[in-house]
Amino acid sequence: MKIIKVRTKPAYEIEIRGGLLTDLAQDLKDRGYGDRYFLITDSNVRQLMAEDLLEMLREAGLPVEILSFPAGEASKNMATVVELARKMVQAGADRRSAIVAFGGGVTGDIAGFLASIYMRGIAYIQIPTTLLAQVDSSVGGKTGVDLPEGKNLLGTFYQPRRVYIDYAVLGLLPLREIRQGLAEVVKYGMIKSQRLFKYLERHSGEIMQLEPEPLEHIIAESCRIKAWVVSKDEKEAGLRRILNFGHTLGHAFEAASAWRLPHGEAVAVGMVAAAKISEKRGLISPEITHRLENLLTSLGLPVRLALELPVSEVLTYLRSDKKARSQWPVFVLVRDIGETVFDPEVPEAMVKEVAEELGCR
Amino acid sequence: MKIIKVRTKPAYEIEIRGGLLTDLAQDLKDRGYGDRYFLITDSNVRQLMAEDLLEMLREAGLPVEILSFPAGEASKNMATVVELARKMVQAGADRRSAIVAFGGGVTGDIAGFLASIYMRGIAYIQIPTTLLAQVDSSVGGKTGVDLPEGKNLLGTFYQPRRVYIDYAVLGLLPLREIRQGLAEVVKYGMIKSQRLFKYLERHSGEIMQLEPEPLEHIIAESCRIKAWVVSKDEKEAGLRRILNFGHTLGHAFEAASAWRLPHGEAVAVGMVAAAKISEKRGLISPEITHRLENLLTSLGLPVRLALELPVSEVLTYLRSDKKARSQWPVFVLVRDIGETVFDPEVPEAMVKEVAEELGCR
Ligand SMILES: NC(=O)c1ccc[n+]([C@@H]2O[C@H](COP(=O)([O-])OP(=O)(O)OC[C@H]3O[C@@H](n4cnc5c(N)ncnc54)[C@H](O)[C@@H]3O)[C@@H](O)[C@H]2O)c1
Ligand SMILES: NC(=O)c1ccc[n+]([C@@H]2O[C@H](COP(=O)([O-])OP(=O)(O)OC[C@H]3O[C@@H](n4cnc5c(N)ncnc54)[C@H](O)[C@@H]3O)[C@@H](O)[C@H]2O)c1
Repeated sequence: MKIIKVRTKPAYEIEIRGGLLTDLAQDLKDRGYGDRYFLITDSNVRQLMAEDLLEMLREAGLPVEILSFPAGEASKNMATVVELARKMVQAGADRRSAIVAFGGGVTGDIAGFLASIYMRGIAYIQIPTTLLAQVDSSVGGKTGVDLPEGKNLLGTFYQPRRVYIDYAVLGLLPLREIRQGLAEVVKYGMIKSQRLFKYLERHSGEIMQLEPEPLEHIIAESCRIKAWVVSKDEKEAGLRRILNFGHTLGHAFEAASAWRLPHGEAVAVGMVAAAKISEKRGLISPEITHRLENLLTSLGLPVRLALELPVSEVLTYLRSDKKARSQWPVFVLVRDIGETVFDPEVPEAMVKEVAEELGCR
Repeated sequence: MKIIKVRTKPAYEIEIRGGLLTDLAQDLKDRGYGDRYFLITDSNVRQLMAEDLLEMLREAGLPVEILSFPAGEASKNMATVVELARKMVQAGADRRSAIVAFGGGVTGDIAGFLASIYMRGIAYIQIPTTLLAQVDSSVGGKTGVDLPEGKNLLGTFYQPRRVYIDYAVLGLLPLREIRQGLAEVVKYGMIKSQRLFKYLERHSGEIMQLEPEPLEHIIAESCRIKAWVVSKDEKEAGLRRILNFGHTLGHAFEAASAWRLPHGEAVAVGMVAAAKISEKRGLISPEITHRLENLLTSLGLPVRLALELPVSEVLTYLRSDKKARSQWPVFVLVRDIGETVFDPEVPEAMVKEVAEELGCR
């Protein structure tokens, strides 16, 4: 078992343990986050495990209701939030009720957002069930929904009261989803921890087998790094942007592929791109890029684009990035594994060249 | 001119001055809340004054767009918020854009909520144009929208960067709307300021004539009191509940009338009810209730229900009040003008008796 403290305001803890769901009921009773609980989940997770969890909680005597929505990013919108809110009101949820977000990043983002606005804010806890949610989206308090015009355009910063990570549930997750999460784990190594990076290099096989010990280790290290970053910069004013390593181009690749390229795979190639740009900016030697490529490959992640994306669209997207201060993004580069630099002056021609090396046309 | 400091986190100021709209452009330029402004207003205010304001701001060289929605409480819902958000995205609004809420409480609540969730929070300023909004809804950072199941069920606590109160705009407001705001002003006297109460007793005539000096005085005193209360208790944990004086029964009257009774009028009768209950609980003499009734009458506000409401419905509503800790509300009573007490143990029979004295059947 590992406990990570997240020093946001208010602060909270992430508990990481295989099998913790089996004694969750007692813990909720002891901690008393609400006098009633609303378990929010998606249709897949409901079938796979949420009905079982519901039964366990009820058997332990906790007053809990379950509410779900159709699985998938397409549900991550305000209509879903309003529907869930109305069901809660109809069920009599008030300010002392608490929300339990049980599912992947989509569930966490929707349920966290709902908790932040329901009667102007009620308690919520996160039980992330995808690797991506366990190492990324459940930490940091970003909540939100999409608009037809773009992802995550409406949302809040709202911290959960506690995050429970039971990696035993990953056994049910398709391998491709596991890989989406691993891309973020590699990112944490690249931006902040030479040690985590080396650990991944040595243990990639066991990790792909979902062996408990290395899983617990990499999840805990990822949460520790993300928790450190967000506690230094809760509202994304400065430091937090190091989390964008690999994401600046990664998002552009996703967008240019009209979201056919999965996020983690886009980020994997985006990290290779950031490494190559770091090389060209004279920050690192090609050896580091090679280690990154080897590690990604051993984790089943791509290092080149599988789709032929038009480089012009990638560049157009970069110029309209909502996180950009001016009309051109600040790139997060590395000068070593675990050490980042911000670079607002990467020439467009250099980005184009790298994008083409990676498979854009 | 008066300036009131609101010591929330973050803190901000309320500027109160007749005619301040005419030099708003320069002030916005000097303070620079955003690099683009989105003026949000309702259809009435747009026609009456927002187009003029827009022109003034543009002439001063400020980059500003206007967005509006149909006037009225029926627009205060998530569909309006999503529509405004989408228009902002389409117009290229980003994290450095700022929202200007220009209108009554409905506009302030919608625009403030939108500001709090747009890209997880952007700057906004309030320019309230009804007396109710100037003395109540623009201060304190409560934002929100209604659900079909009830009012203000979704929302946030989110402070504006500045509030600009130009009471000259009240000249366009129907007298009935002025009275809705005056009910809240009387409330501030009752809960916190013997002096304000006496001022209202002496100056009710001038106030009804909308004379600038007394208007500025009562708006400033109201803002000062509300600002003091909310800075002590930003998230409505304790003290802030004194603002519910007259509202516990007031809301029940509104609900029992199916919202045919306007809010301020319901609160006026609700305050008389709270005074009568205070009497019956041995806290005050009948003389105080009489002064309250006289003041309300001189301001054109009712002291008895104009509609015959079923007392059973009033009681049912009280038992389901979302602000109640248990199933029965804590009443805010007075032991003198300007001094409140919380009373969780007002007998139901006593409430019934008072409701009947005021016109319930
Ligand atoms: N808030 C943040 O900081 C943050 C950070 C990164 C990503 N995100 C968001 O996270 C979302 C992506 O998260 P995701 O990849 O977890 O998507 P997801 O929630 O849609 O989960 C992916 C799929 O796996 C299923 N699933 C979940 N747990 C399972 C399990 N244990 N076994 C089998 N199937 C399971 C889900 O039903 C879904 O079909 C995006 O919307 C993204 O914007 C948010
Ligand atoms: N956030 C808070 O703390 C808080 C407190 C109290 C009330 N409220 C909310 O405020 C709302 C009621 O506010 P309201 O009474 O201002 O309603 P409103 O915003 O609907 O305004 C009332 C009417 O007056 C019009 N109007 C506005 N300014 C005008 C002017 N200067 N001249 C002529 N017409 C004008 C509007 O177009 C509207 O038709 C409710 O939704 C209530 O929930 C919020």
